Amino acid sequence: MPAPRALLFDVFGTLVDWRGSLLDEAAGLSSRTGVNADWAGVVDDWRRAYRPALTQARAEPEWRDLDALQRETLGAVLAERGITLPAAEQETLVQGWRRLRPWPDTRAGLERLRTRFRTATLSNGHVALLVDLLRFGDLRVDAVLSAELAGSYKPDPAVYLHAVRLLGCEPEQTAMVAAHADDLVAASQVGMQAVFVRRPQEWGPGGGSEPPTGLAGLVVADSLELAADSLGC
Amino acid sequence: MPAPRALLFDVFGTLVDWRGSLLDEAAGLSSRTGVNADWAGVVDDWRRAYRPALTQARAEPEWRDLDALQRETLGAVLAERGITLPAAEQETLVQGWRRLRPWPDTRAGLERLRTRFRTATLSNGHVALLVDLLRFGDLRVDAVLSAELAGSYKPDPAVYLHAVRLLGCEPEQTAMVAAHADDLVAASQVGMQAVFVRRPQEWGPGGGSEPPTGLAGLVVADSLELAADSLGC
Repeated sequence: MPAPRALLFDVFGTLVDWRGSLLDEAAGLSSRTGVNADWAGVVDDWRRAYRPALTQARAEPEWRDLDALQRETLGAVLAERGITLPAAEQETLVQGWRRLRPWPDTRAGLERLRTRFRTATLSNGHVALLVDLLRFGDLRVDAVLSAELAGSYKPDPAVYLHAVRLLGCEPEQTAMVAAHADDLVAASQVGMQAVFVRRPQEWGPGGGSEPPTGLAGLVVADSLELAADSLGC
Repeated sequence: MPAPRALLFDVFGTLVDWRGSLLDEAAGLSSRTGVNADWAGVVDDWRRAYRPALTQARAEPEWRDLDALQRETLGAVLAERGITLPAAEQETLVQGWRRLRPWPDTRAGLERLRTRFRTATLSNGHVALLVDLLRFGDLRVDAVLSAELAGSYKPDPAVYLHAVRLLGCEPEQTAMVAAHADDLVAASQVGMQAVFVRRPQEWGPGGGSEPPTGLAGLVVADSLELAADSLGC
């Protein structure tokens, strides 16, 4: 593999801890409203509804952003569990995706990687959400790229190809960095290199996913281990 | 005027000194190749050819990036002046737009403004060029936005509206920051606030442009003066 010119990072789960952060949002909400529930169950159901919602959204004529989709899926999850929450509190949870905490290694790892590579996000979060999220965590990348810019959602190949083109690269000159096998499989299929980041805490203790079978790329424990790798340089 | 949620910055001339930087590129080229010419005249002619080239490009069916347009206009300027330069040296000048030096206030001004506002570029440079340029000058903004994302060029209103939408804002919630009247007039026409930055050295000593007549917005000496302004907060 040649040294990549640019690294593209998945965000939710890869750079930030959505589950731990949303559980904290839920705890705050619970103490404000007095509504008690199995919030871990709610958050996990909500996150499980994410992928099917995106798949469905890709088939719709009008592209809708993640806030709109998450509002819908959260409403459905709450209804299914018989939980009644004021609309304003539901919106606080939806907006909570802008306050997801970086994993402990993320800030320093991104800084180090920027010294050697162009860096960008490539997330299903829309640009406005990503801007707020990166500001919240004080995370620095060279470009905030999103599936929104291709008017679609990962793992649509068009999303990866559009981002790679915006960076002035050929797919082979870039690497997708993600904690999810399907993201990396899709990136590989358009010719990008693949880096799997282990995030064993993504779904709570022991709940991380495994690298795709037969992955040609690198597997790292976190972004600092990635920054310490030569990556073909 | 309400306090803006986001500031969008023009780049060439507003954040970086294209003329001084390109003259240094030309001096290097001259000493490498032994080709002597009125390089200030070349650089100024080249920059003057920029706007008509962009206007023409907007009428073409296929969007082309700034590298492609600048390659063409540079070739025409050199031909008109009877200057023969190897293709590789012409390309060095074209790529020189990725090595434009920030004005002395720019880095610190952007850092300070980021603490209070979302910040983004909104340039006719394409994303790949802007990424390299921002890396070169160590300039930090929250999002690298470009006319490329709207498949057009400023002052097309679609460019401003697309960028504003990507930031999740209404036009009134944003301010365009530029050293050029036409950029601010176009931004105002779609409802954005306008901030004029004086750059009296843009075209060499005493060669800066004046704010648009009847500008409702702010006029500042540089980005530090802008950062010191309350901006309605």
